[in-house]
Amino acid sequence: MNSSTDARRDALRTALTDIAEEQISRAGLSSLKARKLATDAGCSVGAIYNVFDDLTGVVFAVNSRTFACLGETINAALASEKNATAQEMLVIMSRAYLSFATEHETSWRCLFELPVGSEDNVPDWYLKEMNDLFALVSAPLREIYSDLPEEDIQLLARALFSSVHGIVQLGLDRRLSGVPVPQIERMIELVLLNLSSPGGTTSNQNAPGDADLA
Amino acid sequence: MNSSTDARRDALRTALTDIAEEQISRAGLSSLKARKLATDAGCSVGAIYNVFDDLTGVVFAVNSRTFACLGETINAALASEKNATAQEMLVIMSRAYLSFATEHETSWRCLFELPVGSEDNVPDWYLKEMNDLFALVSAPLREIYSDLPEEDIQLLARALFSSVHGIVQLGLDRRLSGVPVPQIERMIELVLLNLSSPGGTTSNQNAPGDADLA
Repeated sequence: MNSSTDARRDALRTALTDIAEEQISRAGLSSLKARKLATDAGCSVGAIYNVFDDLTGVVFAVNSRTFACLGETINAALASEKNATAQEMLVIMSRAYLSFATEHETSWRCLFELPVGSEDNVPDWYLKEMNDLFALVSAPLREIYSDLPEEDIQLLARALFSSVHGIVQLGLDRRLSGVPVPQIERMIELVLLNLSSPGGTTSNQNAPGDADLA
Repeated sequence: MNSSTDARRDALRTALTDIAEEQISRAGLSSLKARKLATDAGCSVGAIYNVFDDLTGVVFAVNSRTFACLGETINAALASEKNATAQEMLVIMSRAYLSFATEHETSWRCLFELPVGSEDNVPDWYLKEMNDLFALVSAPLREIYSDLPEEDIQLLARALFSSVHGIVQLGLDRRLSGVPVPQIERMIELVLLNLSSPGGTTSNQNAPGDADLA
């Protein structure tokens, strides 16, 4: 394959990812259809499968952009609070996660809507990008729980992520019945700030309101 | 309406709920269709709407049974560990929740699959049944966090439920790629047992393995 063919393939990959990203962010993963994707890209349906293994491959490419955007959001939030303690960093990251989920809801949901079991076929680069995001959570945990073995740090990072994700998801799922976002923030803080800190502070000293991070 | 009509209506309600429950537990909420429900119950489609407001009403009736079954599972687990501390009670309840979700996965998922915004039309009796389940979580929290205002206890109960739910859901969603249930249990324990206890124990003293509850 020569370099002009490579360039054409790259251009088609980018075009298809652009279109799929726009479609998913507007109407969700279920709205993504190969035929419409091909029409919008001005190619045949078969051409999609020349540059992606399958439609899931297109979704990986879109989610990869969402990972990058989420990572930037979290890093920007952390950068704006340079003196935060490790525990406060967890809250800052969670708030950034909540705000990202609220502002990019369909793209964010798409991260979790890959068919059950498809993780067996997840490409290594995709897993690496996901693990890089988990590493943001592990770093402050390693500081807070310096005695915990690395295996437990990894598990705790995933557990805390799942916890915050659960709060955000159940909160947003019920948004029309009026659970306001500040209440979701407060729920996250109640969980994260009641985690024991190394000094072993009591629950009450350890459950501040918004003011503590303002 | 005379009592024999009432009895017929009750019988039809029960029959429709039985059939819908079986259908949902076998194939999930999306498989529930009014026409098939009517055929299986030997009634007209219109007759469904004589005894339920709509198909969502049928799902409320099925979910109500799931609530009852979940409540029994949790109470049975608590009853088997009479000397548990408040913090251990949270772990026992979470384990019971995980085991319930694993064993009754489609019925459990159905609890969370009502259309977005439908909570505006949730009947009071349904909300009461849900709140009775949350009350199981609030009780030990009130003991652990005796200084926290009741409003925060309620919010923390929902936050912890959402946390555990998030861990269970993300765990089960990925089950085909081999996240074993014991690892989900450990994740839940890492979160719940690292919550500060009133005495303010440190994270490390406070993060036991299975042995501590065995």
